[in-house]
Amino acid sequence: MPSSEFDLIAAINERLPAPGPRVRVPSGDDAAVVEPRAASAVTVDAIVDGVHFMLDSYGPRAVGRKALAASLSDLAAMGASQGEAYVMVAAPEDLSDEDLLGIADGLAETAIREEVTIAGGDLVRSPVLVVSVTAVGYEPGGSRFVTRPGARPRDLVAVTGELGGAAAAVRLMEMGERRGEPADRGQGILNRQLDPRPRLREGRALAKSGATAMIDISDGLGADATHLADAGECHLEIDLARLPVAPGVAEVVGGDDDALELAASGGEDFELLVTVPREHFAAAAQAVADSGSELTEIGYVTEGHGVTLRLPGGGELEARGFDQRRGSLSGSG
Amino acid sequence: MPSSEFDLIAAINERLPAPGPRVRVPSGDDAAVVEPRAASAVTVDAIVDGVHFMLDSYGPRAVGRKALAASLSDLAAMGASQGEAYVMVAAPEDLSDEDLLGIADGLAETAIREEVTIAGGDLVRSPVLVVSVTAVGYEPGGSRFVTRPGARPRDLVAVTGELGGAAAAVRLMEMGERRGEPADRGQGILNRQLDPRPRLREGRALAKSGATAMIDISDGLGADATHLADAGECHLEIDLARLPVAPGVAEVVGGDDDALELAASGGEDFELLVTVPREHFAAAAQAVADSGSELTEIGYVTEGHGVTLRLPGGGELEARGFDQRRGSLSGSG
Repeated sequence: MPSSEFDLIAAINERLPAPGPRVRVPSGDDAAVVEPRAASAVTVDAIVDGVHFMLDSYGPRAVGRKALAASLSDLAAMGASQGEAYVMVAAPEDLSDEDLLGIADGLAETAIREEVTIAGGDLVRSPVLVVSVTAVGYEPGGSRFVTRPGARPRDLVAVTGELGGAAAAVRLMEMGERRGEPADRGQGILNRQLDPRPRLREGRALAKSGATAMIDISDGLGADATHLADAGECHLEIDLARLPVAPGVAEVVGGDDDALELAASGGEDFELLVTVPREHFAAAAQAVADSGSELTEIGYVTEGHGVTLRLPGGGELEARGFDQRRGSLSGSG
Repeated sequence: MPSSEFDLIAAINERLPAPGPRVRVPSGDDAAVVEPRAASAVTVDAIVDGVHFMLDSYGPRAVGRKALAASLSDLAAMGASQGEAYVMVAAPEDLSDEDLLGIADGLAETAIREEVTIAGGDLVRSPVLVVSVTAVGYEPGGSRFVTRPGARPRDLVAVTGELGGAAAAVRLMEMGERRGEPADRGQGILNRQLDPRPRLREGRALAKSGATAMIDISDGLGADATHLADAGECHLEIDLARLPVAPGVAEVVGGDDDALELAASGGEDFELLVTVPREHFAAAAQAVADSGSELTEIGYVTEGHGVTLRLPGGGELEARGFDQRRGSLSGSG
């Protein structure tokens, strides 16, 4: 933590985007004041150096981007319109001003791209770097928030985008990739860790298309599918042969079978796992395509409980997450 | 962090109070859903083991109480009605289940007493214990939020309650008080650290009484008065002889002069520092008394800038905080 703390805070604030129209009191007061617009969704997501990222290999900008994106991904999984974010940074004394401002730059970069206002926060000293983001979203006109309960037998199970990239990126970085700045280096798979994209448009499109349950894939497909099955008191049957495995994953892990397992269990892809009534699936897929992503049918809902991850050659994969480092205290996962 | 993480989360949830009426989706989903009532105030406040508390000497319940109270104190300083809180706990692997549940008990104790709903949060692994609370409050009917700018020349400067107790409590604990549970031991001065009381009723009473500017004393009277002077582009003249020094502080620090200095510079008292037009002062003092606290006139506002802390024997005390460990990234201080 630098000695000229208050000047640094001003410098950080300068790097953040201007507050959005709902923010009446943006900054420098005891609390931010936000005019309500509709029912709000609030989520908290924290990342810790050495646990969810490595500052040395990610670089500070990627830490800021990932912290905000992880929290916005929870809003996406509600079908929310993104509103405001509040950022707590616990920073070690020996973190350089340059790195702290780099984190702010990363937060600002994602905030600008995702059109979210960073309306407040707290900066404290800590032996370890922690970035926690509270994100507030609003219920869009014409649709309701989509929660975890709600899947019904005969619904189709689908997933946006591609899976396995985030876990493969961790392996790549463990193999020696360092301080990747994706804008400079164009490494698609590393971007799943260094510049994750919350599926906000896709989430709203799915909410409007009649999705019955939705969750973001942060703990891994198996674990997050289990959350949907438990919440909906139903069974999810998933055909792993249909998984949209991210390009490049097989090269990183050394084969198609391992790539499939990573796609089924790796966390932090921040794609959306959703259940949709069969009669609405075509429209939902079109709406997601219009949002710039792709919706892939990977299974269906039945009576029962739990999740079956059916392997291409027969047999099952155990439905647990690759990444059990995270757990939700309650409302915000 | 215990291995049976998800069972523990359920156990924590059981210890938390039931959600309030505005919470539509309370728990176990990607985000909490809250029905808006009025303009909302949002604040983030984090405390870190070894920086803002010592787990060994505070005990886990006091950590939970302090984390929530510190955040609610920011809402008090807006004149807000408390609404929901969202808790991020970054917990070391070797933190026992008992201690983690103790933190939840402390959060629940303060949540119940202060009538706030803990509507969500995140639990992550971390090398060091960090508890960050995002608190959301609402603008009460019949008054507006009171922000830091707004003090006008001729306004009186006043403070609720008593000062110096929180800093004296830190000294007491450094002298060897350990794992104090105030309910059992009745140690009034230690409670300023172990069970701080946010001045929520007092804050609303002051807002309704026409307060022009308000802040909670978290960084110390001198530092927080400087925030009001800077925000209001005015000068605050404070007569230290009038400070309501908490009983027992002189005994801890060894004399009245040192007690006065601690009351003027010690942080974390979580009392409210407020400016009030002279013609409204009597009514404001009565309203604060009706809330169970006391409002003490300690100075006045003039044209100019900065803060003068006038010593009883003449001369001035430098207007800076005793506790510079904290700094606000932006909106929520």
